[in-house]
Amino acid sequence: MTRIIKVAAAQLGPIPKQENRKTVVGRLLNLLYEGKTKKCDLVVFPELALTTFFPRYYAEKHDAMDHWFEDDMPNSIVESLFSYSKKNEIGFTLGYAEKTKTNERYNTSILVDKKGDIVGKYRKVHLPGHSEYEPNRQWQHLEKRYFKTGNLGFPVWRTMGGNMGMCICNDRRWPETFRVMGLQGVELVMLGYNTPKLNSLKKDESEQTRMHQNHLCMQAGAYQNACWVVGAAKAGNEDGFALMGGSCIVNPAGEIVAIAKTEEDEIIAFECDLDECNFPKETIFNFNSHRQISHYAMITSQTGVKSPK
Amino acid sequence: MTRIIKVAAAQLGPIPKQENRKTVVGRLLNLLYEGKTKKCDLVVFPELALTTFFPRYYAEKHDAMDHWFEDDMPNSIVESLFSYSKKNEIGFTLGYAEKTKTNERYNTSILVDKKGDIVGKYRKVHLPGHSEYEPNRQWQHLEKRYFKTGNLGFPVWRTMGGNMGMCICNDRRWPETFRVMGLQGVELVMLGYNTPKLNSLKKDESEQTRMHQNHLCMQAGAYQNACWVVGAAKAGNEDGFALMGGSCIVNPAGEIVAIAKTEEDEIIAFECDLDECNFPKETIFNFNSHRQISHYAMITSQTGVKSPK
Repeated sequence: MTRIIKVAAAQLGPIPKQENRKTVVGRLLNLLYEGKTKKCDLVVFPELALTTFFPRYYAEKHDAMDHWFEDDMPNSIVESLFSYSKKNEIGFTLGYAEKTKTNERYNTSILVDKKGDIVGKYRKVHLPGHSEYEPNRQWQHLEKRYFKTGNLGFPVWRTMGGNMGMCICNDRRWPETFRVMGLQGVELVMLGYNTPKLNSLKKDESEQTRMHQNHLCMQAGAYQNACWVVGAAKAGNEDGFALMGGSCIVNPAGEIVAIAKTEEDEIIAFECDLDECNFPKETIFNFNSHRQISHYAMITSQTGVKSPK
Repeated sequence: MTRIIKVAAAQLGPIPKQENRKTVVGRLLNLLYEGKTKKCDLVVFPELALTTFFPRYYAEKHDAMDHWFEDDMPNSIVESLFSYSKKNEIGFTLGYAEKTKTNERYNTSILVDKKGDIVGKYRKVHLPGHSEYEPNRQWQHLEKRYFKTGNLGFPVWRTMGGNMGMCICNDRRWPETFRVMGLQGVELVMLGYNTPKLNSLKKDESEQTRMHQNHLCMQAGAYQNACWVVGAAKAGNEDGFALMGGSCIVNPAGEIVAIAKTEEDEIIAFECDLDECNFPKETIFNFNSHRQISHYAMITSQTGVKSPK
């Protein structure tokens, strides 16, 4: 059996604070074009792919950050991505900062099919960092200040011949993210990330350890839910803040089958056979045969830790 | 800060079907002695450490397998392990087949403290395999036939200066296992396994892939719950059935810090600083700050997959 979808992770190099959206969209178009040249069906862009990673900057008033947000999607600036998609029959995911009509702000990703139509939207559930200025950090990570917790759950969409899901950056560290999609039969999880090379609170945590953890979470999510995982980084030195690369494609056996070599704009592509999910979903990870939900109650009944006495 | 407990994974080579319990306990005693020589506080033995991995053999009547089970624990055959523990102040975990007074059978592990007292018992929740003879398999895996699903949950015990948990073999592949212990503040998870080198249903699955998956699950469980994980294999060629080795100790960063080199009886040891769990438990994996249980409902409300339409 083969049910192949050729997927690309479109890694981005840094987006400096001063780079305007139009230039960025030009870079995205180039990557989409390169994806098409490589005969890809689907291109995965990173988290917050239209702007710099602005949650590292503090503003007292939230609306001082509104220029980083999109009020509409699509909009005139990104329109060319959608028309390219439609004309050339290539899908994509796109991460961006979303502001709703009712002034709610989310860290969002959309899934666009090969007709250029938005068929899925995900809003980041696991916002990392903090909501107030913290002087003990080498730099700020104010996602909890500028974004609301996503309110759409972890949906899975039947589109492009498979069961497709998305998550964003820090979501990948939480096995609940992948499991909720796994319980919907997900076959391909797409995610983007902006992850610092160093820990703002722990100088001696090595880049190698952090890259290992980045891959570990995607590999475990893929293996334990018998699905493909595609992770696309925004990488490199963004106005003095170093972001890791390591964009990759992971097969349902939990193995990395393609990985980015640079910290720049770079396409990596792989022919993902969605039917490779079938065997593990029917055997070792046959949830219906093996999961024991009566013993999992704590996972949904309590948020924090309750230690034994 | 340091709160060091020196832990050993005591890998076992094969236990042939004909090897009697007394000989096996002699091997365990040697390993306990070696652990003591290396100044260990705690030695982790594999799953079903007193017998061959008998669930690979089919018997029509369950009680034909009763000679593989322990009716009491401790009992006269294993008594020497407990007295050695008490006399030399070294704890251990021990996996064995348990038969209760009411004829219930479990795949069980006990935790024995440095006074030689049983302070914890765990019964395997995620039984792999099948309950009836399956002729399409290269060999049988009848855990679901011979054992009941564990009925003790995933307890965590405050003992030996830390929060201690156990699981068994296939449990490690399920992130729920580690998460339920993580929600109880676990700092050290101990597990034993008997895992075939090959897949009985898929000849082309490589040994390397399977070893990778073995480690991947323990590493992800450790990292995502900010705890140490110690995995002890029964390894080698057991009456013609090849079991993987790869016993290891994983730190809370998800890195393997010690690994077995053989497929024989072998001790690997590491000074585990339980205080290394503190920083990640307080920051990136501060469950109280970051978990979003309202979006996890599916994990406990449904066992199997419900695909989108």
